[in-house]
Amino acid sequence: MGKTQITAELAEFIERTQISQIPDPVVQTAKLLVMDLLGVATAGSIEKCANIIQELTEVQGLSGEATLIGTAYKSNPAWSALANGVSGHALDFDDVSEPMYGHPTVAVLPAALALGETLNINGLQLLESYIIGLEVAVKLSYAMNPVHYEHGWHSTCTLGSLGSAAAAAKLLGLKGERLRSALAIAATGASGLQQNFGTMTKPFQAGRAAENGVVAALLAQKGWTGEQNILEAPLGFFHVFCGPDNYDAERVIDQIGRPFDMEHPGIILKKYCSCAFSHPVIDAALSITQSPQYHPEKVDSGEGHIHKLADQILIHRHPKTGLEAKFSVEGCLALALVDGNINIESFTDNRVRSKEVKEMMARIKREIVSEEKREGPPEFGPAEVKVFLKEGKTLEARVEKAKGNPKNPMSPEEIQEKYIDCCTGILTEQCIEKSISMVQHLET
Amino acid sequence: MGKTQITAELAEFIERTQISQIPDPVVQTAKLLVMDLLGVATAGSIEKCANIIQELTEVQGLSGEATLIGTAYKSNPAWSALANGVSGHALDFDDVSEPMYGHPTVAVLPAALALGETLNINGLQLLESYIIGLEVAVKLSYAMNPVHYEHGWHSTCTLGSLGSAAAAAKLLGLKGERLRSALAIAATGASGLQQNFGTMTKPFQAGRAAENGVVAALLAQKGWTGEQNILEAPLGFFHVFCGPDNYDAERVIDQIGRPFDMEHPGIILKKYCSCAFSHPVIDAALSITQSPQYHPEKVDSGEGHIHKLADQILIHRHPKTGLEAKFSVEGCLALALVDGNINIESFTDNRVRSKEVKEMMARIKREIVSEEKREGPPEFGPAEVKVFLKEGKTLEARVEKAKGNPKNPMSPEEIQEKYIDCCTGILTEQCIEKSISMVQHLET
Repeated sequence: MGKTQITAELAEFIERTQISQIPDPVVQTAKLLVMDLLGVATAGSIEKCANIIQELTEVQGLSGEATLIGTAYKSNPAWSALANGVSGHALDFDDVSEPMYGHPTVAVLPAALALGETLNINGLQLLESYIIGLEVAVKLSYAMNPVHYEHGWHSTCTLGSLGSAAAAAKLLGLKGERLRSALAIAATGASGLQQNFGTMTKPFQAGRAAENGVVAALLAQKGWTGEQNILEAPLGFFHVFCGPDNYDAERVIDQIGRPFDMEHPGIILKKYCSCAFSHPVIDAALSITQSPQYHPEKVDSGEGHIHKLADQILIHRHPKTGLEAKFSVEGCLALALVDGNINIESFTDNRVRSKEVKEMMARIKREIVSEEKREGPPEFGPAEVKVFLKEGKTLEARVEKAKGNPKNPMSPEEIQEKYIDCCTGILTEQCIEKSISMVQHLET
Repeated sequence: MGKTQITAELAEFIERTQISQIPDPVVQTAKLLVMDLLGVATAGSIEKCANIIQELTEVQGLSGEATLIGTAYKSNPAWSALANGVSGHALDFDDVSEPMYGHPTVAVLPAALALGETLNINGLQLLESYIIGLEVAVKLSYAMNPVHYEHGWHSTCTLGSLGSAAAAAKLLGLKGERLRSALAIAATGASGLQQNFGTMTKPFQAGRAAENGVVAALLAQKGWTGEQNILEAPLGFFHVFCGPDNYDAERVIDQIGRPFDMEHPGIILKKYCSCAFSHPVIDAALSITQSPQYHPEKVDSGEGHIHKLADQILIHRHPKTGLEAKFSVEGCLALALVDGNINIESFTDNRVRSKEVKEMMARIKREIVSEEKREGPPEFGPAEVKVFLKEGKTLEARVEKAKGNPKNPMSPEEIQEKYIDCCTGILTEQCIEKSISMVQHLET
């Protein structure tokens, strides 16, 4: 297979794949992922960044059919996709793909929802476009990661833009040249810097991915032109976002839909609303706090052992805000060791700035584990935590895969519980129940 | 000066620079550049890509105070900036910065116009924000080019996004942390691929730059947070868009406003609506057609001698559309040699597909000139054209700098003539006259 066919074959996958051909386990997983995103976006809709977007919705006089999740606002599909991407990622509580090192659903689903609501589609069409979009976003990473991510790109936005374009194009029924133009327009909007992790600009990047896809598909539908081989062309997406020949283009095509990534290796659901790279550390720390010998006041010092890529991503060594603490070994460990649990309130500015958390943070060091023996690209784990007690004893824990990883999965019941937690206080009980039932029967 | 201060110092330049401190020659040049952009955006407003944006303005039910140039549409500032960036770049007839290898005004001015109209600013404020924004976009290139551009980035969109954010932030009066957040948000939206040159997605990228700046400034005004050292941070803008240590960060700060780039080295105005890298070739070909010995039917073959970067950018060797011909040595040379002149009609699909142009194109080869002897980064020229006549004679011409280059400038009268040409048939004569006078007195 010649390299010149990558974009065309990807477009063909988008064009020809139908929900009836997608294996049922994939569809069932997709429904759980939809529920999870709706939940975290509802919880995120009362965060400050979401409020700013809501305010601008009003200031700009926007209107339309597409709901801003968790609110009474409606807008046009592009803005609504942006808004729901922001809400969905505001808490960093949404799902994660390990090969992508990114958040696939928050980039793709808000695009499908916003456009879908405007087009008045049914549940099957929503699932079809969402599954295809997620598959595109994640499989692109097979060609590009870890190089792409290690360079500093926020793949949620870069790869996510193409995934959301795929979903939006599928809903609009784009084919052939127009479909490939949609991919070219989305590729040209792809961006997003890890350096903004720990600020509101991270959720902005997720929203931008969703918006990029909607805008790209709407333009292409009207005949907007773009490079027809945007992925593999000499100065195309792979070249620019990985560097010359620093990618394996054909892996996308070889593996797309065979199997779907939702089925294998699967998608990570988050138990904690912090960066997925911090979860193994948190799980290890929490297990230590269960020890009868443990008490926060007995801690002399602590160590979080992580690998090099986790060190790059958890960029904040001295977090001063809740957002920064989500991207901090020191912050996550201190919160877990002081409180013995981690929830949405852990990552508020007040909690992070509290005397006891700050004091614990000062006792914690990160250690970078040598990766010489690792095979394959870095994963979300393992991690080790060591706690040295003042009395001289050491408590240790090692976690291979955090709770929520496909290798240590959350059950459907746990996912539903998380959904209810996220929505409580924002939606009525009746509305929560109704929405659960709606998602559970999305394909019928 | 430590590297850690780059973003802060750039922000300080934006914050403290006032129109009263800007040298008068810069202000006078700025007015000519404003006139030129308004003209090419008016001409561009009837192109298909602009029509699609106008259609989506209606479909999305957008409204507001900000005019879509050349039309009766008005919209919110972000969308209007996008729309005018698209119109302004639709013909590729807008101005160019040589160090930037990009189009600074089309990225910056639509942002200032759209936000300015909404805020009801005066002409001095418009000039102030525009001059500052352009200076930021271009001076960033001093740190990053040619590496950045050679990698395949469309600097109009990447660097332009920061320029438009600077202009928009200036108009909103952002300071300190909020100003630096605006730069971080814009940096995260920066993107754009040269591979899309020759398609409508190139003007989309210009529009996106303008829109990015407006959105970034509006979000930051409301308290949206972003990385405070986005340029020089370890995974920041310079690193990601140039590669590790592949940039000279401090050149931005050393040279910003000293002098303003509008004054020296100056901005290129375009005599032809094709890629600036094609202009020296076109000028050379047109001078050959003036020879009494020349007639298109006498041409046996022709050669366009260009340097390596021009070869990269003029990506279409066999253009099939007007847009592709704008980025083609072969297309530009054939059009010039057949018609003996180049104007907006040259780059229509019909003209490019005509029998005589296609036949001439088949006779033309590009030759890449060795760059061993060149000092400094590649510029827009020189170029050489050789035409071998069937009778055995060779006609040759060499052009150092095309007409419109600051070293071979268009006069204010020629710029006004171009403006009138661009607007005729779209605006009334009265409206054209009135707008010329308005721009000429913008600072009073």
